Amino acid sequence: MIGNFIYSNPTKIYFGKESLNGLREELPKYGKNILLVYGGGSIKKNGIYDEIITILNECNKEIFEDAGVMPNPTVEKLYEGCRRAKEGNIDLILAVGGGSVCDYAKAVSVSAHCMEDPWEKYYLRMEDVDNKIIPVGCVLTMVGTGSEMNGGSVITNHKQKRKIGHVFGENVMPKFSILNPLYTFTIPKYQMVAGFFDIMSHILEQYFSGNDDNTSDYIMEGLLKSLIHSTKVAIENPKDYEARSNIMWIATWALNTFIAKGKTTDWEVHMIGQSIGAYTDATHGMTLSAVSIPYYRFIMPYGLEKFKRYAINVWNVNPNGKTDEQIAKEGLSRMEEYMIEMGLVMNISELGVKEEMLEGIASGTFIMKGGYKILTHDDIVKILRSSMK
Amino acid sequence: MIGNFIYSNPTKIYFGKESLNGLREELPKYGKNILLVYGGGSIKKNGIYDEIITILNECNKEIFEDAGVMPNPTVEKLYEGCRRAKEGNIDLILAVGGGSVCDYAKAVSVSAHCMEDPWEKYYLRMEDVDNKIIPVGCVLTMVGTGSEMNGGSVITNHKQKRKIGHVFGENVMPKFSILNPLYTFTIPKYQMVAGFFDIMSHILEQYFSGNDDNTSDYIMEGLLKSLIHSTKVAIENPKDYEARSNIMWIATWALNTFIAKGKTTDWEVHMIGQSIGAYTDATHGMTLSAVSIPYYRFIMPYGLEKFKRYAINVWNVNPNGKTDEQIAKEGLSRMEEYMIEMGLVMNISELGVKEEMLEGIASGTFIMKGGYKILTHDDIVKILRSSMK
Repeated sequence: MIGNFIYSNPTKIYFGKESLNGLREELPKYGKNILLVYGGGSIKKNGIYDEIITILNECNKEIFEDAGVMPNPTVEKLYEGCRRAKEGNIDLILAVGGGSVCDYAKAVSVSAHCMEDPWEKYYLRMEDVDNKIIPVGCVLTMVGTGSEMNGGSVITNHKQKRKIGHVFGENVMPKFSILNPLYTFTIPKYQMVAGFFDIMSHILEQYFSGNDDNTSDYIMEGLLKSLIHSTKVAIENPKDYEARSNIMWIATWALNTFIAKGKTTDWEVHMIGQSIGAYTDATHGMTLSAVSIPYYRFIMPYGLEKFKRYAINVWNVNPNGKTDEQIAKEGLSRMEEYMIEMGLVMNISELGVKEEMLEGIASGTFIMKGGYKILTHDDIVKILRSSMK
Repeated sequence: MIGNFIYSNPTKIYFGKESLNGLREELPKYGKNILLVYGGGSIKKNGIYDEIITILNECNKEIFEDAGVMPNPTVEKLYEGCRRAKEGNIDLILAVGGGSVCDYAKAVSVSAHCMEDPWEKYYLRMEDVDNKIIPVGCVLTMVGTGSEMNGGSVITNHKQKRKIGHVFGENVMPKFSILNPLYTFTIPKYQMVAGFFDIMSHILEQYFSGNDDNTSDYIMEGLLKSLIHSTKVAIENPKDYEARSNIMWIATWALNTFIAKGKTTDWEVHMIGQSIGAYTDATHGMTLSAVSIPYYRFIMPYGLEKFKRYAINVWNVNPNGKTDEQIAKEGLSRMEEYMIEMGLVMNISELGVKEEMLEGIASGTFIMKGGYKILTHDDIVKILRSSMK
């Protein structure tokens, strides 16, 4: 059943090989001062930086730079970005990069004019935004988080060992996002496959919840099948435009609120993954891949019907002559084989997790209520332990 | 491959049993003068009219009524609506009804302040809107057209025997739409199943085009499977909320531009159906159902791979030991059986089409270029004739 909800997603998407031209249509809508936000500088090597600077100059913009956004943006970096945004009297934040850069841009957009400590107000206390919001536009160079078309923003506080995501409303969603699949060709393989699994996890965490008959579950099965097909092509040939364009579009729709509307969702894997991230600073998608199979095997008995459906509809398991449990298990085994084939990290030891961290990671994990089993602290420790080598 | 495109859909959706409350959030955003647009008055019998009037009064609105919108809104009615909108100095058009009422509201919204004949400018010449647009909000009471979340508007000119749809841009899309599945419970069965097939046809006409590997095709397979399942439930029990809510949501996403992005589309069935509609004033969805099987059987050899995929992925045809053609044909046979089971009109004679109209209907049919075969005039006559009893 499609339950009660409000759907509103005003982000305008420019997609394709020529999509950077969308900047010329968007920039005139905003004031003069642009905060150009990016990461470690790879955009300077591949030419995207120069292209963007050219367009910004053509549009007579004043450019303020905020570089060095790290893969898991920190609260200290956020404070720095807020200072820059206020000093520059910024009219538009232009994020050029992957999900971390987009997340960070949204964090600065709500925090720059916040009168309190934004970490406390917007992340620890998860309050609604009641101050001026600086509009954000994105040029995406890495695929996975879906940050380009949602209100989500994850910030890490290493001192507090907390990595917290706040899903802000439509007024914080990017005004526009530019999605050029060519920009994703040069991502290193490790980051590429981590992004692939981030997408898959977004879909699975919305799929494995509820026992109703819900259109969104059918849509997610379609997205998953297309994702599995295209990632297999992309791992063989990362420059296959067809595969990379499909993956880019799936990533956006996996987390722009659409497939969650009218249904319950889980998100426990992300909660565990984020807690691991706070302890290890490991790549987000790999924290998810390392705990997914242990997690799904653990909760499978509590959502057997859905795991059976998943096996048949997504992994083409032939159900003839098998018990529901056998079918469901076979589905997860095929998923595991696929993940190994993709080169994903399958255990948390490889991410730097030590035995003595398990209790802390479990304690730092938010317990969600939408999955097939509400986990206890001991459940999480058990799941983590079965992901140790 | 997901090709080049711009995606932007600003319509805000309020969905569910309590969704009419969304009106209270939306109305304060607009001026005082509301043009309340509706059809034959069924909303007065089922209480929706009274509920809306109460909310409009609570919000201190001045109400101007424009009732009597017919199933295929005519150009004469459009001229009348334009007069009312101008005389009332209307700030918001509130459409309460099905697709025809929403289509009509959008036609008035772009035409009221048009200095020329809007039929000629916006329908015959398909020009862009360059005059003031009156914002539109919708309360949907019938499901099928997707008009609640797109810029489409079909107007019929009986004198010219032309039924023409213009797909306007994002600035003409409804600002908000209220989708309450309960409102669809009382639709007469004939209109209900016609709406069901309208939805199916929207998806199929975007699916049966192109030979690339495209994520949208996977999504459409999911939508079709959910639609087939839920319509079978709804035909047995029209008051099954789960089924009706799924169908309502599928209808919206079948034609809000999403599944067409980055791929080619066909739309020839709609072109033939609209030409039949101009001759017979038959129910839109039934004109589509009456020509679909003849059309798809005719073009199947030109798009065999896709019809094979359709048979397997949507209709669960077992491909073992069969030729591609056998698989494809079996898929269309299962679709035909389903359509008969649903009580859809399977031939155009039943809609009042006579042998002597065939040439005229064919001549009045726009020829689209995105399908697996570009039809000739004779092809259309042949398809129409095989739909005669």
